[in-house]
Amino acid sequence: MRLRLPPRSQTGARVWRVEGGRVEERPDQLATEEPLEIRLLQGERRRTVAVTMRTPGADAELAAGFLFAEGVVDGRERILRVDHLADGAEPGCSNIVEVELAADGPVPDLASLERHFFSTSACGVCGKAGLEKLHLRIAEPLPPGPEVSPEVVRSLPDLLRQAQGLFAATGGLHAAGLFDPAGALLAAREDVGRHNALDKLLGWALFAGLLPLRDHLVMVSGRSSYEILQKCLVAGVPVVCAVSAPSSLAVELANRFNVTLIGFLRGDRFNVYSGLERLAGAAVQPSLPIL
Amino acid sequence: MRLRLPPRSQTGARVWRVEGGRVEERPDQLATEEPLEIRLLQGERRRTVAVTMRTPGADAELAAGFLFAEGVVDGRERILRVDHLADGAEPGCSNIVEVELAADGPVPDLASLERHFFSTSACGVCGKAGLEKLHLRIAEPLPPGPEVSPEVVRSLPDLLRQAQGLFAATGGLHAAGLFDPAGALLAAREDVGRHNALDKLLGWALFAGLLPLRDHLVMVSGRSSYEILQKCLVAGVPVVCAVSAPSSLAVELANRFNVTLIGFLRGDRFNVYSGLERLAGAAVQPSLPIL
Repeated sequence: MRLRLPPRSQTGARVWRVEGGRVEERPDQLATEEPLEIRLLQGERRRTVAVTMRTPGADAELAAGFLFAEGVVDGRERILRVDHLADGAEPGCSNIVEVELAADGPVPDLASLERHFFSTSACGVCGKAGLEKLHLRIAEPLPPGPEVSPEVVRSLPDLLRQAQGLFAATGGLHAAGLFDPAGALLAAREDVGRHNALDKLLGWALFAGLLPLRDHLVMVSGRSSYEILQKCLVAGVPVVCAVSAPSSLAVELANRFNVTLIGFLRGDRFNVYSGLERLAGAAVQPSLPIL
Repeated sequence: MRLRLPPRSQTGARVWRVEGGRVEERPDQLATEEPLEIRLLQGERRRTVAVTMRTPGADAELAAGFLFAEGVVDGRERILRVDHLADGAEPGCSNIVEVELAADGPVPDLASLERHFFSTSACGVCGKAGLEKLHLRIAEPLPPGPEVSPEVVRSLPDLLRQAQGLFAATGGLHAAGLFDPAGALLAAREDVGRHNALDKLLGWALFAGLLPLRDHLVMVSGRSSYEILQKCLVAGVPVVCAVSAPSSLAVELANRFNVTLIGFLRGDRFNVYSGLERLAGAAVQPSLPIL
């Protein structure tokens, strides 16, 4: 499976390649980066809820995944329609996505979204307060399972890389992939932003009716941070793998909510930071809380 | 020069290392990720302007650099004081920084900052509108110079990596370094977030009275995106280098404002995306606009 590339996802450029004393001019392809404005419509209400720099392509999935991960919508039945603004309605229509919610549904709480991006008053982000808020949204640690073999884990980076058409063209894209416990790739999404790639993937899963992703693995390029774990947790993902290191907060979240967190997944090796019991064949050890 | 590591910048953890069929438990060090709340004080006004997930350390520089790069303060003389909240004043004091501005100075325009993070009304981010706004803040393209040799450019990644004490310990940190045209490292900062590392570096330069950085090079780990270029431009940096690929918007900004943008800087090679004329010894070619 190789991703189809929307025409605007890459941008032609001219580059001078310098090697030793030689300077050679050549054509090049860059990953496109453009702003996306996400607008929420509900009955008479209409509101811009976010502007994010993203790589065009899968914009509807990005908008839906973002709103789901941030707790604005809790299921696809809430969403009537996700569309780019009608052509010609405003300049830059292709960079504006409208998400229409059922008029008779509950009005989403945008306060948490606002707090997430910008706080206009003291917001109590101190110590564990942020985690406590997240805890309220995610009532319980994830249940046990699925079991995953080390061979499956080791196979994920190559499978994700092979799906990355835009990375192959530009060398500069983050990716997120969704796998089943046998290591089959279900979907992969790319973006200049790590979080956008994951939002696109979760939006795909939302539209596909797969949420919560209780029997799935997510693999991300780069590191795993608070935001990556937070988004995966909201989607119920029990196994999160990353090419690079996790942050302390990613590990703390993974421990607290029983996520198997894997990092430095390269070649024949990887590190398990939490939830070792999902790894098939590993000597079962109690998960030791680190805090 | 190796960075001093603040005690809270890394967090001890237990990790299971899986290699082939072996699972081995060992101690590990993670890059700490915690929220930082930045509060702005001016006379009687007091307002939280941002919450960012960051690696503790250089918090005052991070706050000052962020406010400078976002256009909230335009020089160090505007800042009376940057401090962590007094110990015990609130829970999580070490994650709250207060920036006090001169009471009789101009009231900063927080609207652009707000727009940056969260838009409560249609904000016109469509097509080139974002760039036009930036254009208004940065009146002119950067002037010519300095000239930099390819050897200096090639030396930057190793110098930056050697300064990364926390990366060495945790394997998971972004970095930004400031160099003079002869390749001497002036300062380096690390963070779990790319933008934070750059904000810390710019905050350092602000406090050191070096702004604008008209005769300097900045090197960042990872890719160069719109935000990296935007921050460097506000600080007047003429040469921006990155280990990985630039986005289309980074190249567009670099072309428009006469920044020398270098990417894929690894080993003996690098790519020049704009401003080739600052590269000493390169056959001088006109900078070809790509748009």
